[in-house]
Amino acid sequence: MTAAAPGPVDLDLDRTWTYGPDVQHGGHLLEQVVTAAIGAVDHPHPLAVSAHFLAAPRLGAAAVEREVLRAGRSVSTVRGRLVQDGRTCLDAVVTAGRLGEPSAPLYAVGEPPVLPPVEACLRNSAPAGERRNGITEQLDLRLDPSAAGWLSAPSGVAEVRGWVRYASGRPVDPVALVCLADALPPVTFALGLTGWVPTVELTVHVRALPAPGWLRVVQRATLIADGWLDESCQIWDACDRLVAQAVQLAGYRPT
Amino acid sequence: MTAAAPGPVDLDLDRTWTYGPDVQHGGHLLEQVVTAAIGAVDHPHPLAVSAHFLAAPRLGAAAVEREVLRAGRSVSTVRGRLVQDGRTCLDAVVTAGRLGEPSAPLYAVGEPPVLPPVEACLRNSAPAGERRNGITEQLDLRLDPSAAGWLSAPSGVAEVRGWVRYASGRPVDPVALVCLADALPPVTFALGLTGWVPTVELTVHVRALPAPGWLRVVQRATLIADGWLDESCQIWDACDRLVAQAVQLAGYRPT
Repeated sequence: MTAAAPGPVDLDLDRTWTYGPDVQHGGHLLEQVVTAAIGAVDHPHPLAVSAHFLAAPRLGAAAVEREVLRAGRSVSTVRGRLVQDGRTCLDAVVTAGRLGEPSAPLYAVGEPPVLPPVEACLRNSAPAGERRNGITEQLDLRLDPSAAGWLSAPSGVAEVRGWVRYASGRPVDPVALVCLADALPPVTFALGLTGWVPTVELTVHVRALPAPGWLRVVQRATLIADGWLDESCQIWDACDRLVAQAVQLAGYRPT
Repeated sequence: MTAAAPGPVDLDLDRTWTYGPDVQHGGHLLEQVVTAAIGAVDHPHPLAVSAHFLAAPRLGAAAVEREVLRAGRSVSTVRGRLVQDGRTCLDAVVTAGRLGEPSAPLYAVGEPPVLPPVEACLRNSAPAGERRNGITEQLDLRLDPSAAGWLSAPSGVAEVRGWVRYASGRPVDPVALVCLADALPPVTFALGLTGWVPTVELTVHVRALPAPGWLRVVQRATLIADGWLDESCQIWDACDRLVAQAVQLAGYRPT
């Protein structure tokens, strides 16, 4: 139960997951922090991750400072803090445990999003001449055209949904789900709103080990008002299991 | 942008909000931590609160250790950590800002829960002879009988909803919303499941200053499986405005 100081983990923030010239994707930053954090405890899977995004780090050297808040029998809780030049950029707390083979749920409501077949969906690739978007290189992301207003016609509903897997074929593990919970384009795009949507707080609950294969992701907003919006996210696996749920509070800054 | 160390705030955890003989209600514990945390910055309203519950403190002396992670112009982020006998019981991060008069939303979906009139709802008071429940003394909580299976007939749906205000007439401010986001009985009760439901992680997003008067609260679960359940919560005010959204991951321990 005593707090331990496991020492920092050095990171090199490279261009792989950058959006535009020099900003790493927030979900990928968080994934790196979670990986470092759970490395300090005996529980391999993040069950609940909550993160506050304070500042965007530049590319290059950074560190994750770690603190074990509680090392328990069934779960452990660890803080991971991304620091660069003495500045905290991202502060995350992870409660980690061990996920096994899922059993039949006591209760379940809801269904995976209904999507057109993968080949009928739109690749979320950056158009030639536009800013490079590392997400579209790292992920094979296929968007439902009826909910991708910026690519086809605005839907009027703050919802985006699609298929996702790694372009490299890398399997999606529970830590990767943390990144995928923030991988779709902002739901504001579906409304034709093109402002900047910086994530302020992101919480991810991992519910099961994902089965191999395509995942289905849906993100929705309930309220966009006074410069703020929520986004909720569900990720379903190829066995129709809900494997992750997430919510975020983001700013909305019109351009 | 530099981190400051504003010093701890002493707490006396009393019996007011206890459940049974000696456990304070988690939402009330969090409210006290948030109050202490935002006292360290210039922004008065919690916008995003994420908390991990590590251990139940005993009644008596405790302290909230505070750390300002970022003091910004529009928002500030502070950590608050409830410590007792050298043990971290609750670790919360708060991004605080300043809420003003709400303007017309850019986008809004969803409606407040449809409830019977206050006087047709059930008081959530502890039956004589049962364990005392401080929540039912501090809050005037009226549950929709059709979603209060343990008081009437099981609904088969993991949802509880009702009216809430303070018994004392104290107005509900944004910090109080953090407590109210975990004030209803667990949704498992609506299914006739009587196991213990300890909150592991709770995230609250405050969306607007609540108008005076009764609030309507609804909590729902999506998945109860493998010893874990989610609960999402919405709080609506008397002007039909969504004033807070919350999610939690809780354990489910059958009795």
